[in-house]
Amino acid sequence: MREDFINLLIQKVNETFGIMKPYMPAEEGLQRRVTESMNYSFISGGKRIRPLFMLESYRLFGGDDLSKISPFMAAIEMIHTYSLIHDDLPAMDNDDYRRGRPTNHKMFDEATAILAGDGLLNLAFETISKAMNEEDDIIVLRRMVYANSVLANKAGIYGMIGGQMVDLMMENKTDTELDTLLFIHKHKTAALIEAALMIGAIMAGADDEEIEKIEKVGDNTGLAFQIRDDILDIIGDSIKLGKSVGSDEKNDKATYVKIKGLEESQKDLESLSKEARDIVIGIAGKETFLSDLIEYLVNREK
Amino acid sequence: MREDFINLLIQKVNETFGIMKPYMPAEEGLQRRVTESMNYSFISGGKRIRPLFMLESYRLFGGDDLSKISPFMAAIEMIHTYSLIHDDLPAMDNDDYRRGRPTNHKMFDEATAILAGDGLLNLAFETISKAMNEEDDIIVLRRMVYANSVLANKAGIYGMIGGQMVDLMMENKTDTELDTLLFIHKHKTAALIEAALMIGAIMAGADDEEIEKIEKVGDNTGLAFQIRDDILDIIGDSIKLGKSVGSDEKNDKATYVKIKGLEESQKDLESLSKEARDIVIGIAGKETFLSDLIEYLVNREK
Repeated sequence: MREDFINLLIQKVNETFGIMKPYMPAEEGLQRRVTESMNYSFISGGKRIRPLFMLESYRLFGGDDLSKISPFMAAIEMIHTYSLIHDDLPAMDNDDYRRGRPTNHKMFDEATAILAGDGLLNLAFETISKAMNEEDDIIVLRRMVYANSVLANKAGIYGMIGGQMVDLMMENKTDTELDTLLFIHKHKTAALIEAALMIGAIMAGADDEEIEKIEKVGDNTGLAFQIRDDILDIIGDSIKLGKSVGSDEKNDKATYVKIKGLEESQKDLESLSKEARDIVIGIAGKETFLSDLIEYLVNREK
Repeated sequence: MREDFINLLIQKVNETFGIMKPYMPAEEGLQRRVTESMNYSFISGGKRIRPLFMLESYRLFGGDDLSKISPFMAAIEMIHTYSLIHDDLPAMDNDDYRRGRPTNHKMFDEATAILAGDGLLNLAFETISKAMNEEDDIIVLRRMVYANSVLANKAGIYGMIGGQMVDLMMENKTDTELDTLLFIHKHKTAALIEAALMIGAIMAGADDEEIEKIEKVGDNTGLAFQIRDDILDIIGDSIKLGKSVGSDEKNDKATYVKIKGLEESQKDLESLSKEARDIVIGIAGKETFLSDLIEYLVNREK
């Protein structure tokens, strides 16, 4: 990872948020409580990894018209945000805090949080559909239609929601097999990262082979990210991480590290992220912010 | 309403279900619990009013290629179904039964019901996006893109979800004003009926003026449908209706009838539905199944 990465990251995260912000709903009308609730969770987001990955992939493949990628950046962050709101609900993970702030249902109430999640998921596709409806260029429209189908697929029951279902079914089970754990990580986490990178490539006009390569980058990065999460849960510093260390162990949840051991897990993480970085560097012809970002994410300390 | 309407209705409801069924997900894979839960609620649906309205509107405007309208029929029913699953949750209306069967969260569990709702909403847009991605004809694709944007808008925070938010905020309030109640009915109920009729017209190639007319039909029908609901709640036969008569009164909820009185409500219902039927008959040049269906819905006894 090159020097000044963190400064560049902060700059890019701010840029990403600025690009997405205009797509958030006004807090007006009789129904404004639901838009307040949606904005509350959207605004308190973190590193905006998915839209940032999307933007960097778009640039990697030569995309240079921000207005074409921005609706998708907003949409994928809306989908990520809704998934967090619903995951935090009492019937799901029952979390009171996220990133140091009350979770949506604690700040508002459960009914509002359910609707805010629904509202964000719907708004994601509404945002893209509006942009498609306003697009005159048929070549760009075809790319948007393809990108939209990738997003819908990776976010749904064959992607993120599917992973979330299996994750829920494995709660408090200690005998989860590695295949099942890989299914969860691949679907719950990697799917949206794959979608982000693929959509960037698609909108920049990448060909099928390139799209497949960048999907692989997303798959590897998503899995490596989760392995790092599991490692941090064992060795991490509780203050840095912002949650109780060993919380997965406490509820008897199977993790990658518990199944494969710390050393083997670290090895897997390194080989996954090296492969991902090599693909990106191969496409770019040199190290780029995107390859640095992958390295940063899989080595992060919180 | 003409003779044999009920037989025709039953035939059409079955036809509609047959058209939509292939779009439902297979119950397979590690995540099959979520698809089982989605299918459970989708299959136990009622009169399939929204996709039926869509199909009849499509035919009214000369549409004759079922394969072009069918993904939208499935999508709107998925959206209606997800909204019922989430509405029934303990944090929302807390209903144990729907149409005489356990609600989704009673049959499965709350977490699964939340995910099944999310899954259906996502699958609605996934279904349309897949069909758009496979469409070669650019004129048809443009119609699909437009229809998709109408659906996303009418289902979201400016439509159904917005209405649901305001409805929740008015629970146990007796001083709700008529404007607020009209907002709820227009958004929570009428919006999806408008979308159904508009999408049928759009996919059949109707012009802007025709689309606006049929939107008005949906608006009137949706509101008349809700007024009928409120009337039935006061005068209805509890067995026919399948729920406790006066249940809205019991929880002190404002209703159209309580604000305007029974006689005035019945008058409004009749004038709304007459106007809607007249528009349909004007377009068709004669009474049609669609005009009969409107009459049936606003005079139903359960």
